[in-house]
Amino acid sequence: MAFPKKKLQGLVAATITPMTENGEINFSVIGQYVDYLVKEQGVKNIFVNGTTGEGLSLSVSERRQVAEEWVTKGKDKLDQVIIHVGALSLKESQELAQHAAEIGADGIAVIAPFFLKPWTKDILINFLKEVAAAAPALPFYYYHIPALTGVKTVRAEELLDGILDKIPTFQGLKFSDTDLLDFGQCVDQNRQQQFAFLFGVDEQLLSALVMGATGAVGSTYNYLGKKTNQMLEAFEQKDFSLALNYQFCIQRFINFVVKLGFGVSQTKAIMTLVSGIPMGPPRLPLQKASREFTDSAEAKLKSLDFLSFTDLKDGNLEAGS
Amino acid sequence: MAFPKKKLQGLVAATITPMTENGEINFSVIGQYVDYLVKEQGVKNIFVNGTTGEGLSLSVSERRQVAEEWVTKGKDKLDQVIIHVGALSLKESQELAQHAAEIGADGIAVIAPFFLKPWTKDILINFLKEVAAAAPALPFYYYHIPALTGVKTVRAEELLDGILDKIPTFQGLKFSDTDLLDFGQCVDQNRQQQFAFLFGVDEQLLSALVMGATGAVGSTYNYLGKKTNQMLEAFEQKDFSLALNYQFCIQRFINFVVKLGFGVSQTKAIMTLVSGIPMGPPRLPLQKASREFTDSAEAKLKSLDFLSFTDLKDGNLEAGS
Amino acid sequence: MAFPKKKLQGLVAATITPMTENGEINFSVIGQYVDYLVKEQGVKNIFVNGTTGEGLSLSVSERRQVAEEWVTKGKDKLDQVIIHVGALSLKESQELAQHAAEIGADGIAVIAPFFLKPWTKDILINFLKEVAAAAPALPFYYYHIPALTGVKTVRAEELLDGILDKIPTFQGLKFSDTDLLDFGQCVDQNRQQQFAFLFGVDEQLLSALVMGATGAVGSTYNYLGKKTNQMLEAFEQKDFSLALNYQFCIQRFINFVVKLGFGVSQTKAIMTLVSGIPMGPPRLPLQKASREFTDSAEAKLKSLDFLSFTDLKDGNLEAGS
Amino acid sequence: MAFPKKKLQGLVAATITPMTENGEINFSVIGQYVDYLVKEQGVKNIFVNGTTGEGLSLSVSERRQVAEEWVTKGKDKLDQVIIHVGALSLKESQELAQHAAEIGADGIAVIAPFFLKPWTKDILINFLKEVAAAAPALPFYYYHIPALTGVKTVRAEELLDGILDKIPTFQGLKFSDTDLLDFGQCVDQNRQQQFAFLFGVDEQLLSALVMGATGAVGSTYNYLGKKTNQMLEAFEQKDFSLALNYQFCIQRFINFVVKLGFGVSQTKAIMTLVSGIPMGPPRLPLQKASREFTDSAEAKLKSLDFLSFTDLKDGNLEAGS
Repeated sequence: MAFPKKKLQGLVAATITPMTENGEINFSVIGQYVDYLVKEQGVKNIFVNGTTGEGLSLSVSERRQVAEEWVTKGKDKLDQVIIHVGALSLKESQELAQHAAEIGADGIAVIAPFFLKPWTKDILINFLKEVAAAAPALPFYYYHIPALTGVKTVRAEELLDGILDKIPTFQGLKFSDTDLLDFGQCVDQNRQQQFAFLFGVDEQLLSALVMGATGAVGSTYNYLGKKTNQMLEAFEQKDFSLALNYQFCIQRFINFVVKLGFGVSQTKAIMTLVSGIPMGPPRLPLQKASREFTDSAEAKLKSLDFLSFTDLKDGNLEAGS
Repeated sequence: MAFPKKKLQGLVAATITPMTENGEINFSVIGQYVDYLVKEQGVKNIFVNGTTGEGLSLSVSERRQVAEEWVTKGKDKLDQVIIHVGALSLKESQELAQHAAEIGADGIAVIAPFFLKPWTKDILINFLKEVAAAAPALPFYYYHIPALTGVKTVRAEELLDGILDKIPTFQGLKFSDTDLLDFGQCVDQNRQQQFAFLFGVDEQLLSALVMGATGAVGSTYNYLGKKTNQMLEAFEQKDFSLALNYQFCIQRFINFVVKLGFGVSQTKAIMTLVSGIPMGPPRLPLQKASREFTDSAEAKLKSLDFLSFTDLKDGNLEAGS
Repeated sequence: MAFPKKKLQGLVAATITPMTENGEINFSVIGQYVDYLVKEQGVKNIFVNGTTGEGLSLSVSERRQVAEEWVTKGKDKLDQVIIHVGALSLKESQELAQHAAEIGADGIAVIAPFFLKPWTKDILINFLKEVAAAAPALPFYYYHIPALTGVKTVRAEELLDGILDKIPTFQGLKFSDTDLLDFGQCVDQNRQQQFAFLFGVDEQLLSALVMGATGAVGSTYNYLGKKTNQMLEAFEQKDFSLALNYQFCIQRFINFVVKLGFGVSQTKAIMTLVSGIPMGPPRLPLQKASREFTDSAEAKLKSLDFLSFTDLKDGNLEAGS
Repeated sequence: MAFPKKKLQGLVAATITPMTENGEINFSVIGQYVDYLVKEQGVKNIFVNGTTGEGLSLSVSERRQVAEEWVTKGKDKLDQVIIHVGALSLKESQELAQHAAEIGADGIAVIAPFFLKPWTKDILINFLKEVAAAAPALPFYYYHIPALTGVKTVRAEELLDGILDKIPTFQGLKFSDTDLLDFGQCVDQNRQQQFAFLFGVDEQLLSALVMGATGAVGSTYNYLGKKTNQMLEAFEQKDFSLALNYQFCIQRFINFVVKLGFGVSQTKAIMTLVSGIPMGPPRLPLQKASREFTDSAEAKLKSLDFLSFTDLKDGNLEAGS
């Protein structure tokens, strides 16, 4: 099978892993979740078992089951299902990569290992290469998130230099950082390639679009996908003023919850509120979002009128709330 | 005198303080420097005694002399001369603010104190307010640079909330960080004001322009002002593709020098190369840029053909070098 | 079975996981390794599958096999075999804890999860409690290493407050940090308990002994166990001058290798040199120590005369090398 | 005048700068403060204009006045008055060094500059050398505090290597960090010298004494000097159990206030409480300690019976508070 395969474009929702009140995985709502993303949010790509999905809090066995369920339920509905197979153990990462290929996923993504850390770019590439080799027919995405992994010494731009010689299945980057010099140079230095440059800092996506991002992976696209798609469309049509209005509106919500403390637990609570599908609590070491958080978030969602964005098109957006 | 005064717009060069080989200030070239900025780079605003100007490495007496020289030589040539008066000592900051008013500067800017640090937003505002009060007729700019000051707990957006009640002369922000959620919300929440939102991360200015920046302060505008002005113009005319080409071209140079080690010492060397005006070595604790750096930077400047940008307009920019 | 069980005392070697040149676990040398620790280094306690043992780079299945091999080979030779069962996934941690009990280990140790992080002391305790509950008959040790986990908000002293109410099997602390206020208060506030206070910063063990440490866990005890035991003995006999001589001698070696870059890869190389037992290369994301490192380390070991320490007793230690 | 001069030994109080309610320096109580330190706390050395003294929050002119007042009032009462002359500006640091010599201070101390930072050990030494040269007859102390200055790349042990060739007046080190490998190697590698090795982390002084510290500089010696001297005496007499009891008792207080938020503001409040001499509020960017803090600290001081330590000698210290 020749590379590049079908390019990953537009919004990619980093899926939540729904759980029961006991902290077991609630597979039963995944079908409904797929439909919700497609129909209500207009999002047709997903990124499974990432940070938002508590991927590293699951056992390897659970990660396999979750991946399989999303692939099965997404069939003929979703465009692409990317499985995050990063792990601290290379062996486990390889096992997950091979499994992703077996179940018919559309790609795999890998984070840099972050306990014992690769000291140089070359060691990191060697690690990624070993994972990629376990799924030689699957597009490979590198998930760059230096603040979380502490692997700050390796700039993405340097990693991409000649990457296809080492990882022939390399097909893109999830860039979760605000260093847009590094991101911009990834785009600039690889114009001849068909790489996907997916931005991962939802609250400032517009700043990356202007720098050449071809798509985005994030948790907020679970519930703000429709609004963000409107921003993408405005940007595409060169209506920057409208695009900025959408971005600001989205920022108001994120800015609000960031001040309250915003993480995976809170994302689960918000998604439950917005979609009506029960996401359940997170698993330890996370703790369920507080009632206060949920109430405040709900009030904010209402005050921002996040069900209708039509007024934005008239340029009437007012500052505030 | 009523506020707001004339709005600070477009590019603002963070001036270098020229020195002799002995590390004394070389006042003699400042007149020539003014002419160079205006005529060759199209930059008519300056930010004096900031990080680039080694402001905190100078004695208070030297800071006064430097400020005075720039105001004198800039008269009738520059639009606005902003003096950075931030200091660890409130008293010295106040003395410098008062002096800036006396010599007829157009505004003052202040960094958060960063040895003993303000613990809360309110304490920081109190500090800034005391400085501003020493120059009640001068526009006041807050210089937000959390990575350098370590004052990361205070988001700019929160600081700006109701700022005019506390600092009536507040007129804008130099935002030197890549957190464009914070920056975006500064813009969004203050649409009714006439504040200047000046971005301070030169290598990704385009990402802030799309988020509402009204101008920029930086060291690279000393020698890349003309190119950056072309980017601003393309952005203004909604030619985003061209704007991005300019941004990428600028990034290629910065990306190159960042890998070699890029700071004030290197800025002095580059400016000497590009302008022909001797900037001299930095003062301790900095050390003169190495010969290797200077040679490499010069070769890169040539390879990027930084004297002519006409090819960009044809969209022929090629990746590389 | 009643608690506290036999107290863990003295030196505990954080075992290396020997590997073949292909990066597979080399079980065949573990018996020899046990004998070496006991006979040559006088170390009779081990800490298996920790950082030094690349525990988190192994698959769960490998971790089980490694633990089992150490317990088997250590039988009747070692005093205590502690298995580190920390993992990012609570489920896997529980599985490993239960397995440790089944194979007859003497205790389990757990690191705070460090990808998604516990936000508060209570959440961290809940996590640890769930792991401990999977092995209700085994002594439980908390492995405190804030710099590595980033869980800096939870001070060990606060965690220990009332810990037996929550984790009845709690029996001690591996404290891998230089904050000896926190460590001292752990000791001071728990005098009535029979907890083990094991220090984990080998190069400054003496500073913790004086603060009440009851033992130590570390990688250097694999090859500096004998020397460190001599330091412990001198300290026990209140010969502080001699104890300091031993500490300085040990520091000279560690200081030397720290400057060269010192981690698990280098520990494997040094142990191979000193013990003659082949430890093999590390697994990705680590890379084999360079030849230059190994040569330098060998020369240093010789120059320090690390085979005989008798001169120290005469107080003739000279500064240098 | 030959070096080394009289060695600086034992406790050195980092003096507070007393202020009036308006934030002006209250010179009138400095004489009383000297007597209090000598008579009530048994502390006869001081470190003026350091962090505790808000040295960097004062103007250069104020720093000169404060230094002069302490030298004058300390005459014939204090053993040594060390003036901290560190500043971001080399010129100001030199001016202060020269002034310290003129007024008859016993030594100067200098912190690494921390806004623009020295990139290498050699540049830092050059900076320090230039300051030292401005006071060629005064003992010079380097104030190592990497966490505050961010100059973490330069280990003190490396800085001291051959230091007398570069700074002939070098006479010691204030080491404010918990890296006792670095500290230990400073001591170990310089046994032939008469350097003072002053530890600056009050709450764990005992851990540095055992590693060879010859004295200590800190803020708590203003009010815990007597108790700390008792610890020093017990250590000197090799009564380690008693020394540890004193250390734990001191830790209980510091541990308590650390949890409440402990800095210069709080030190001023505690010193006012304990000594009865009004220290006044701090200057911006600090804010007066809250009433809640002061009340809690007072209650804790009482509960620890910090007026009498006699019970400790009987070994009856009980855990708790």
